[in-house]
Amino acid sequence: MPHPFDPGYVAEPFLTLCAEYPEANVYPPDQFRVEWGPIFHRGRLDGSARVLVIGQDPAQHETVVRRILVGEAGRRVQGLLAKLGITRSYVFINTYLYSVYGSVKAKSRRDPRLIEYRNRWLDALVAGSQVEAVIALGQAADEAWQFWRATTSGQSAEVGFAAVTHPTQPESSSKGDRTKLALATKKMLQNWNTALQTLSPHVQHPDTPTPLALYGDAWVDSDRVAIPEFDFPAGLPAWMHEQDGWARRAGADELAKRRNITITVTKGVVT
Amino acid sequence: MPHPFDPGYVAEPFLTLCAEYPEANVYPPDQFRVEWGPIFHRGRLDGSARVLVIGQDPAQHETVVRRILVGEAGRRVQGLLAKLGITRSYVFINTYLYSVYGSVKAKSRRDPRLIEYRNRWLDALVAGSQVEAVIALGQAADEAWQFWRATTSGQSAEVGFAAVTHPTQPESSSKGDRTKLALATKKMLQNWNTALQTLSPHVQHPDTPTPLALYGDAWVDSDRVAIPEFDFPAGLPAWMHEQDGWARRAGADELAKRRNITITVTKGVVT
Repeated sequence: MPHPFDPGYVAEPFLTLCAEYPEANVYPPDQFRVEWGPIFHRGRLDGSARVLVIGQDPAQHETVVRRILVGEAGRRVQGLLAKLGITRSYVFINTYLYSVYGSVKAKSRRDPRLIEYRNRWLDALVAGSQVEAVIALGQAADEAWQFWRATTSGQSAEVGFAAVTHPTQPESSSKGDRTKLALATKKMLQNWNTALQTLSPHVQHPDTPTPLALYGDAWVDSDRVAIPEFDFPAGLPAWMHEQDGWARRAGADELAKRRNITITVTKGVVT
Repeated sequence: MPHPFDPGYVAEPFLTLCAEYPEANVYPPDQFRVEWGPIFHRGRLDGSARVLVIGQDPAQHETVVRRILVGEAGRRVQGLLAKLGITRSYVFINTYLYSVYGSVKAKSRRDPRLIEYRNRWLDALVAGSQVEAVIALGQAADEAWQFWRATTSGQSAEVGFAAVTHPTQPESSSKGDRTKLALATKKMLQNWNTALQTLSPHVQHPDTPTPLALYGDAWVDSDRVAIPEFDFPAGLPAWMHEQDGWARRAGADELAKRRNITITVTKGVVT
């Protein structure tokens, strides 16, 4: 069975962007897990993307896979893109190259060096490209987009835009309370429906033309869409892209946890 | 500081070779850790390689990094290549795509599907290429080379060849006995010296012309050479390529160990 994969960073400007990135002097180690290295993107870098998604920051699965939004949040966004008819022609970048540790101070978030580097990605992906719509996941991503919009190339780009609630905000805001979770999910899906109505007219070249079908008040199975194998680097096993939960930060104290990622092959794969 | 990286599998025939590889029907899971996916190579795939190294199989560090021979064995071979003046123009493949679990049965080792797939890599890397010398690490790699030598394209290739003792054979054969280790190391370095004398006249286009300096009876510091950052995928942190020991298989029993890789950031990196 063939296993299509993402070849990664094969041409300029991405070769340079992935060799010359901001490090600990721009991303302070008390706010970012710089020790795991930067994680850049997921999706098409060959100019074929029609929708750009801006996420927030990578977590432990992303650190192993070296691609962003490969877990539950990624599957939810994959479903959002599918409602726009986009099944392949997308690209994701994050607001931050490194996983957030604790919270990000305003001074870091607004560091011109951090913003300028990210703007070089946005220049490469949006300015003069085929991208028709941009989706920002959460507030930091929205701000990232506005920073770019204020630049010369950002001002002249003609694309649809929607800032949406971050796909795992219902879980993070409800902290295990099922009633709160259901309410937050409903509210998020309404927010996403508004975004779909904003974006849909802009997406003129979907991979699979699809009549717009809005979300209901809760998730249905078809709302979560598998992340395609062709988004992952060569040779990664199926269990790494079929589901998450296989990577965690383990340790007896904060420092030990910070220094650790424990990978466990999904149950049933080794028999 | 720029961080040069290996772009990986960007052109044919490697795009196809990395999408269509033998799986569990060829590599039996009772002999190979197929659950972690295949790991293909390290080094130059752009036709610039002058020396090909054939290793045996990947271990846990290789599984995380998705490149082969990135640990102690790799550093020793890097030193061997440096003695031939080869500091960049090399490529490594392994006899096996997956980590050996226990031992490999003759039937698997000689499976025509396993051999044919590997021969496609050897065709791509040696037949009609600039490669001037080939080094096989250990017996399985020697046999892999001989299988290819028996093919039509293998017969017509004009390259120097040496099968050498596997770089970590002294450790594996001496099982903690320091006297045995010193003897096995001395014997291996003599074996490598013979190989250097065989190969040196074939390496006509070194990266850095270097007068041949043989090994002594024991390792000296300069014999082990760092694996260059430009051999690793984009964004990997420095501690992943500066030393090994940061990945281990942990677990209470054999199955748990088999399902696990625990990554721990090297001490002193997070402060």
